[in-house]
Amino acid sequence: MQVNHKHYRTVWMEGSAVFMIDQNLLPFEFSLFKSVSCSDTCIAIKDMTTRGAGAIGAAAGFAMAQGALEAPAHKYAEALLEAKKTIEQTRPTANDLFFAVNEVYKAACINSDEAVKKAMELADTNATACRQIGEHGSKLLQNHTRIATHCNAGWLAFVDYGSALSPVYVAKQQNKNIFVYADETRPRSQGGRLTGWELYNENIDHAIIPDNATAWLMKKGEIDLVITGADRIAANGDVANKIGTLEKAIAAKYYGIPFYVAAPLSTIDKNTPTGEKITIEERNADEVHYATGPDPEGKMRTIRLTNPNSNACNPAFDVTPAELITGIITEKGVIHPTDIKDIILIH
Amino acid sequence: MQVNHKHYRTVWMEGSAVFMIDQNLLPFEFSLFKSVSCSDTCIAIKDMTTRGAGAIGAAAGFAMAQGALEAPAHKYAEALLEAKKTIEQTRPTANDLFFAVNEVYKAACINSDEAVKKAMELADTNATACRQIGEHGSKLLQNHTRIATHCNAGWLAFVDYGSALSPVYVAKQQNKNIFVYADETRPRSQGGRLTGWELYNENIDHAIIPDNATAWLMKKGEIDLVITGADRIAANGDVANKIGTLEKAIAAKYYGIPFYVAAPLSTIDKNTPTGEKITIEERNADEVHYATGPDPEGKMRTIRLTNPNSNACNPAFDVTPAELITGIITEKGVIHPTDIKDIILIH
Repeated sequence: MQVNHKHYRTVWMEGSAVFMIDQNLLPFEFSLFKSVSCSDTCIAIKDMTTRGAGAIGAAAGFAMAQGALEAPAHKYAEALLEAKKTIEQTRPTANDLFFAVNEVYKAACINSDEAVKKAMELADTNATACRQIGEHGSKLLQNHTRIATHCNAGWLAFVDYGSALSPVYVAKQQNKNIFVYADETRPRSQGGRLTGWELYNENIDHAIIPDNATAWLMKKGEIDLVITGADRIAANGDVANKIGTLEKAIAAKYYGIPFYVAAPLSTIDKNTPTGEKITIEERNADEVHYATGPDPEGKMRTIRLTNPNSNACNPAFDVTPAELITGIITEKGVIHPTDIKDIILIH
Repeated sequence: MQVNHKHYRTVWMEGSAVFMIDQNLLPFEFSLFKSVSCSDTCIAIKDMTTRGAGAIGAAAGFAMAQGALEAPAHKYAEALLEAKKTIEQTRPTANDLFFAVNEVYKAACINSDEAVKKAMELADTNATACRQIGEHGSKLLQNHTRIATHCNAGWLAFVDYGSALSPVYVAKQQNKNIFVYADETRPRSQGGRLTGWELYNENIDHAIIPDNATAWLMKKGEIDLVITGADRIAANGDVANKIGTLEKAIAAKYYGIPFYVAAPLSTIDKNTPTGEKITIEERNADEVHYATGPDPEGKMRTIRLTNPNSNACNPAFDVTPAELITGIITEKGVIHPTDIKDIILIH
């Protein structure tokens, strides 16, 4: 997508270096982070310099390719396995990470050139799939449709285009005016920061809303449709995504509002039978207690938000049961969550 | 309740001055604000130096008494009406404000001494009602019950004891260990700040959670019961309360978890037939865009949270339909929301 009239992907590889848009600095600063080693890329995944299911997947694939490039010839196989393990320990929930690492690992077992080729191919596939998701999803959007989305499943969360926002971008190209309510998505504010930034740059009408306001806007008839992303889809159609997704899905069900999940097929984890089995990352409570942002002079400051002596819980994801999901928008079209099992048989 | 081993009310009157705990400074600083005029008290209500249904009500009553004390003899009636109008324009949603202003206005029509007496009497009544709410509500709590609450409906939101938290405080006196999940309650973080501060000071086990996490904790079986406050209860049992209450009520219904509202009977607005008719305050979008808190050196800083060019919506309250409410905990006992109409007939 475009930033200052130049096309960028969220994450890419040049030689042995991995470049990524530094998402911890957005929307206040647009800056690229260059990672020159597998371990640096792992840190960047862990500290969320890059984040979002597809971007994590691509970055993890590139990290595995870096691992192959770095592996000494005399213990190549051992080093590969070590790198794979390190990458897999960065973040537990996004299926794309494990999918990409596995694919690139297999290629790396041939040689490092194959690993790099495979990692780049996976990133391309991700971008293409997201574009196709946009094409299928845009059919759900009419002129003046008002959608709600949660967290950031825009192009920053993938290699390009995004999942939940891709239909909005494609609809815009079709001259449809779409309005987006972006949940701010506490505690890390990916909605207020990244989705807001993306939509502003793409000139899409939008409003950031406190996570608390979604059901009320639904009740008032302000929301026609919800589209969120997914970090992992279980074989029964249950969807793990950013914490709060479940609450939005329950509210949408209560008000009879269609609730769609947009995700490439690589998000499906056929080895996880139901959402109950998905590991949910519990992140540091300080993400709830503190917030960082620019003061009026533009200097980044960290402030305390909560009572200094209180504890906090910070589950990063939740699981939305298939029964609350109207459809999953994939690169192959919109499928019902219970049809995931048929998709698994084909792939 | 106790602050540093001394008993405080949230708001009280001495002579012609109104004192209040400055809730904009909590939890980072405990400080009293002294208002020496009706118009200063109005500003304090408007800028949320004092906030919460019952505290607003008491402060508004005291403001009306100040209005009577300030009214010049030669145009007493005119000045009273002017003061009443000014106070009523501070905040639109809490019924207690209009209730208290009306009651004190009627007393003020006799003379200013009667106005002061009435305002103090209303504050006492509020404190007593909250204590009784605690006694009735505590019967719903067993040892080790885990409750969720939204925003702050503790003693800071009233004159003393609180509504939603009063049952917790009374249960504690009965030697029951209660665990409280406090929604942080964006955008103003009353849960993370005020509820956290109250619970810490009263030595109640608790965790602050992002508003997004409630449904997930319900799904995981971590929440036995929800208790929130109310700003206004319509004649059909619909409840206006802090934005996000509706979403919690829908989630509780979905998971079969009892959802209680705790409020004194003065919160009932018999002139509003249904929740549809309740005016919902839309507050400044900057509350979503900015947050203020202490930096690591303790200096208060304001930072930007969202994409600088994005718009935001900031509805301050929502309306939870009676069908989602298990019961309303009042000073007269726990009543079913549809029985509000019988209460109205009695009063």
